[in-house]
Amino acid sequence: MNTTPRQQQFASDNLAGMCPSAAHWFNVANASGHVPAYGEDEWTQQVCARMRELFQTDCDVYFVFNGTAANSLALASLCQSYHSVICSDVAHIETDECGGPEFFSNGSKLLVAPSASGPHAGKLTPEAIEHLASKRRDLHFPKPKVISLTQSTELGTVYSVEEVRAISAMAKRHQLRLHMDGARFANAVAHLGCHPSDITWRSGVDVLCFGGTKNGLPIGEAVVFFDRRLSEDFAYRVKQAGQLASKMRFISAPWLGLINDDVWLDNARHANAMAQRLYQGLSALPLIELLGAPQANAVFAKLPSAVAADMRARGWRFYDFIADGGVRLMCAWDTEAATVDAFVSDMATCCTSAAG
Amino acid sequence: MNTTPRQQQFASDNLAGMCPSAAHWFNVANASGHVPAYGEDEWTQQVCARMRELFQTDCDVYFVFNGTAANSLALASLCQSYHSVICSDVAHIETDECGGPEFFSNGSKLLVAPSASGPHAGKLTPEAIEHLASKRRDLHFPKPKVISLTQSTELGTVYSVEEVRAISAMAKRHQLRLHMDGARFANAVAHLGCHPSDITWRSGVDVLCFGGTKNGLPIGEAVVFFDRRLSEDFAYRVKQAGQLASKMRFISAPWLGLINDDVWLDNARHANAMAQRLYQGLSALPLIELLGAPQANAVFAKLPSAVAADMRARGWRFYDFIADGGVRLMCAWDTEAATVDAFVSDMATCCTSAAG
Amino acid sequence: MNTTPRQQQFASDNLAGMCPSAAHWFNVANASGHVPAYGEDEWTQQVCARMRELFQTDCDVYFVFNGTAANSLALASLCQSYHSVICSDVAHIETDECGGPEFFSNGSKLLVAPSASGPHAGKLTPEAIEHLASKRRDLHFPKPKVISLTQSTELGTVYSVEEVRAISAMAKRHQLRLHMDGARFANAVAHLGCHPSDITWRSGVDVLCFGGTKNGLPIGEAVVFFDRRLSEDFAYRVKQAGQLASKMRFISAPWLGLINDDVWLDNARHANAMAQRLYQGLSALPLIELLGAPQANAVFAKLPSAVAADMRARGWRFYDFIADGGVRLMCAWDTEAATVDAFVSDMATCCTSAAG
Amino acid sequence: MNTTPRQQQFASDNLAGMCPSAAHWFNVANASGHVPAYGEDEWTQQVCARMRELFQTDCDVYFVFNGTAANSLALASLCQSYHSVICSDVAHIETDECGGPEFFSNGSKLLVAPSASGPHAGKLTPEAIEHLASKRRDLHFPKPKVISLTQSTELGTVYSVEEVRAISAMAKRHQLRLHMDGARFANAVAHLGCHPSDITWRSGVDVLCFGGTKNGLPIGEAVVFFDRRLSEDFAYRVKQAGQLASKMRFISAPWLGLINDDVWLDNARHANAMAQRLYQGLSALPLIELLGAPQANAVFAKLPSAVAADMRARGWRFYDFIADGGVRLMCAWDTEAATVDAFVSDMATCCTSAAG
Repeated sequence: MNTTPRQQQFASDNLAGMCPSAAHWFNVANASGHVPAYGEDEWTQQVCARMRELFQTDCDVYFVFNGTAANSLALASLCQSYHSVICSDVAHIETDECGGPEFFSNGSKLLVAPSASGPHAGKLTPEAIEHLASKRRDLHFPKPKVISLTQSTELGTVYSVEEVRAISAMAKRHQLRLHMDGARFANAVAHLGCHPSDITWRSGVDVLCFGGTKNGLPIGEAVVFFDRRLSEDFAYRVKQAGQLASKMRFISAPWLGLINDDVWLDNARHANAMAQRLYQGLSALPLIELLGAPQANAVFAKLPSAVAADMRARGWRFYDFIADGGVRLMCAWDTEAATVDAFVSDMATCCTSAAG
Repeated sequence: MNTTPRQQQFASDNLAGMCPSAAHWFNVANASGHVPAYGEDEWTQQVCARMRELFQTDCDVYFVFNGTAANSLALASLCQSYHSVICSDVAHIETDECGGPEFFSNGSKLLVAPSASGPHAGKLTPEAIEHLASKRRDLHFPKPKVISLTQSTELGTVYSVEEVRAISAMAKRHQLRLHMDGARFANAVAHLGCHPSDITWRSGVDVLCFGGTKNGLPIGEAVVFFDRRLSEDFAYRVKQAGQLASKMRFISAPWLGLINDDVWLDNARHANAMAQRLYQGLSALPLIELLGAPQANAVFAKLPSAVAADMRARGWRFYDFIADGGVRLMCAWDTEAATVDAFVSDMATCCTSAAG
Repeated sequence: MNTTPRQQQFASDNLAGMCPSAAHWFNVANASGHVPAYGEDEWTQQVCARMRELFQTDCDVYFVFNGTAANSLALASLCQSYHSVICSDVAHIETDECGGPEFFSNGSKLLVAPSASGPHAGKLTPEAIEHLASKRRDLHFPKPKVISLTQSTELGTVYSVEEVRAISAMAKRHQLRLHMDGARFANAVAHLGCHPSDITWRSGVDVLCFGGTKNGLPIGEAVVFFDRRLSEDFAYRVKQAGQLASKMRFISAPWLGLINDDVWLDNARHANAMAQRLYQGLSALPLIELLGAPQANAVFAKLPSAVAADMRARGWRFYDFIADGGVRLMCAWDTEAATVDAFVSDMATCCTSAAG
Repeated sequence: MNTTPRQQQFASDNLAGMCPSAAHWFNVANASGHVPAYGEDEWTQQVCARMRELFQTDCDVYFVFNGTAANSLALASLCQSYHSVICSDVAHIETDECGGPEFFSNGSKLLVAPSASGPHAGKLTPEAIEHLASKRRDLHFPKPKVISLTQSTELGTVYSVEEVRAISAMAKRHQLRLHMDGARFANAVAHLGCHPSDITWRSGVDVLCFGGTKNGLPIGEAVVFFDRRLSEDFAYRVKQAGQLASKMRFISAPWLGLINDDVWLDNARHANAMAQRLYQGLSALPLIELLGAPQANAVFAKLPSAVAADMRARGWRFYDFIADGGVRLMCAWDTEAATVDAFVSDMATCCTSAAG
């Protein structure tokens, strides 16, 4: 089996494999012979208990296979088909889940707010929520029922504790529930240096989709209900939706590798630090326009098209994003400093070439 | 981490872990650094190619997380909400998927036929299909559109090539499509000794859900479309339904461990052989009523309730099934002869005790 | 425009037109120029108020276009996709709504109980409910959430107040909600001679689908929620489902014609009486096997096939029902005694001819 | 029964009742005793035949209860849950059907294009379609499958034959199907003076939702499939969705009153003419800003808030629309010249008062 010449890329944090501690528990779980299926095994029970300790509350925890399912099932449990979900126009649930939320909810509409810009790029604001929640109050339009935040956002920014609280206050004012898409929740907590409860239930979040895959798991996300009244019969929903693993240990046990010794935070801190390193490196280059200092693990930049083409010709992979010439550079739990430096070095060469 | 005193059980074939060759490729895939996501990786491409070789036809292959999703998405691609699916009354899609097929199809109805009994227990018959396909022809009842077979069946029997063909002929007669739930497809092929194409597309099967989990994978099933017109836009369906793995390599690469060197057949032959051994062992015991010689990897038996209770008190785990006193004993790819013998020995003791 | 030679038939009570008092209000509503749409008109408000008086409780009333919609939307408001509905195997929701309940609920499963026979034909029994509610308690099967009764039943029988109460007690025991399909509710009340509240909310019914069409309306049924917590946002559900009439007056105003002066009961009493007359007339004939004295407006009979064919050749229309040779004869609000007598007379002739 | 002091309003064309010719056939249908249900009656057959004559093609015609259902079911028949529908941001399916299209399609996403402005206000343009159809080509976003036009538009404009053809060409280029929401189709045909086939199938429209309610029916719209391959099993879809009237004659027969003698066009021409009269009248007033000469039956204007308040205090009813101070004034088939003149006269008074 050939691998690509480049071992590491900045295209997405889901290009990385499993982190060693997740791999350890995956293999431990495999080595234990026959174990009960569908989550009745010891690892699953243990991870749920650890998750409750981590969040310092008696939350209800479910494991599903991926982020589309986590978000879609969580949202479907918060609203009916004739309700709507307020989110940012760059929210993953709007732009990259192929209508998953609409499918699982049997038709709930996403109401998109133009996201903020500058240092708050990608964030929902209380004002935007207020506008969407108030705009239509008649039954010819789906009734707003949920706010969905992405923490950290799709544009690499992180909501502060105060910002989450302000949104939560707005949610209460309009009797909306609060969902957090935490595909990169770890990166947000690592950036803020707060306790994970501070930006979730202590700030009024009802349900968190806690991302594992981008943090170093092979497969799987956790859906964490802080308001247990909202998770009534959620296990049935998971089963019906094809999200209940029979050999659940392979989904749950690797979480022990993330939670034990706060590996999830270490992985996130590392990815965030690599984004900082990348940002610092690129900021010295003449033709690159950087879009704000990174808060989580992504760097957004505008490149001349010749530079982008040249970098791709050299084997680098990254996604175009948002506007013309904009690219997203994601760092993962395993991104090496040497990879960052090699990328910056190649970029310097390409810029020089383009400027010449 | 404590494991249960008993290392092996007969409760289900999904209590077993990964087989070594699947584990090998899982770890190879992990060791390769950054690789493209969502199935653009080399392993996924390679497994699809191997699957086409295996079936000797240019089929269209998709990987999903579990059997409920595989069956539900396959069926949803074959029918609309106002159509119906003919299946046996013991079909897994009817009895154990919590309404998954109805959910993914947005309401398709399952029309259940009383399954055959005796040596054909669990099978659909052409006559039963004819009856259900003809019973209602008005638009006040969902129009029959699909037949779903389970191969091997939930009662451990295996459709012969001729039986599949007879059902396929009935399908054509009533313009029905033919779906095969192959959660234990390998066990059926191992039993029949036929080529896998013989009981699928060469016999008129349109879509096969090819089970990996019970055959030795950690997670994952393949949906194989033999009629490619039916898989139009199926990739979108998979994505929207939360069944597209971002780190796809972890779902696809282990399949190489099954397909290479026909490990899938070896695993199935072993499980089938263990079921034979269990059957032979139990057939010598006085109070046990065995329900037909096993064809695949399950043994069904009727036990006095005292015997069942005594066995469970000794740490054995197995499911009650069908009628009163009926139990199902499943063998897995890793069931050891020693486990079978220990079970039979304990059963003999329990029977003696109950008889005394 | 030719009409068929026979002005009246026994095929169904939906072959009849509007009753005069419904027609009166329909035309009054039309004559009033411009009126507010979507139920903001005076007639709709007035009918809702009258409905609350009729049931002697502050119920929540919605108007929809037909019975499939009424039942499906009511059930969808009582259960989620992973829940199930217990009903009789002859329930209209199971046999004649083309999967409407499954569609509107996004997949809820109907669990059918073999209906009782003899004088209780078509009824659910507490025992059958208990069996279905207890059979599966694991999350691999949809969780029972609702019982659906048809009053009067599809086989022409009527639940007594005591029977409804016994079923309601069973519902409470298993935490199930109670839905009543009242497509022929009026015929049941007319038969029992009780107050309409006695067999609805006073006996534990949560939601009634109150049939108007078969009772003399041109179009439309009412969904009556006795437990208002269950109707939260139901108006949105109705709108999204395409069941909110813009010119609502044409749906609601005719109900005044039914409720005023208890015309709904007069219509039902007349239809029931015609069924009695038909039953009496047929009971004197030699080759006709009658299946129980009618309680509502239907007579069920077994005829020799030659007799049925002969009757159809004479222009009579009626449906085959249930078993071989079984036919259903429905009387409507406008069925004339002369029509009954002509039918009986023709039947006598056909029997004589067949016997000869 | 009190009616409001004002007999006529400009709030919506669905505030009007039935037109006399529709009422005639409604009553004729009622007077005919027992007739077959579910569309097997003579009127339904006759209307379908007349519709085929009207459109000069062998189209497939279905009757449903309202516009939400017509549009939602038509769209659901053109796309799957993972597909998307391109429409204008003022399209009724986006703004006023409470998520009906998403519900009936089980999740299809509406992709909204900013609608054109000025004399083309409310229209989709080929450029906007091209942009949306090309923007995303990956499976993480719903695949565009349908274009939906409203003819006449929600802003009172009318697509010319050339414009429909240009959009149809774009549809073909991107393999999209073409749906026309014709809630006010008659007003468009009346304005254009073309044959109804010219702006439908002869210009590439696949499915038309032909509005009856706003044109003078009490209840009901027709779904007309010009490409009959797209209507396969559509009758089942209608039944399952609760849109099949049992006493179908009351839905279908009134259509004879519209189609015979081209009453549908007369009704539309009259409403359009009243909009012209209203426009002319208002154009003489100083404080009123009119937004383009009416093409169909609506006038859009900006009023000082004091004027709007004063008019409402005088008993006039109309909707705010779009921007601040914008109002929509709809004329119906029965709007009288005297009503228009009285409205203009009152407006003149209010303007004078406000200017003073």
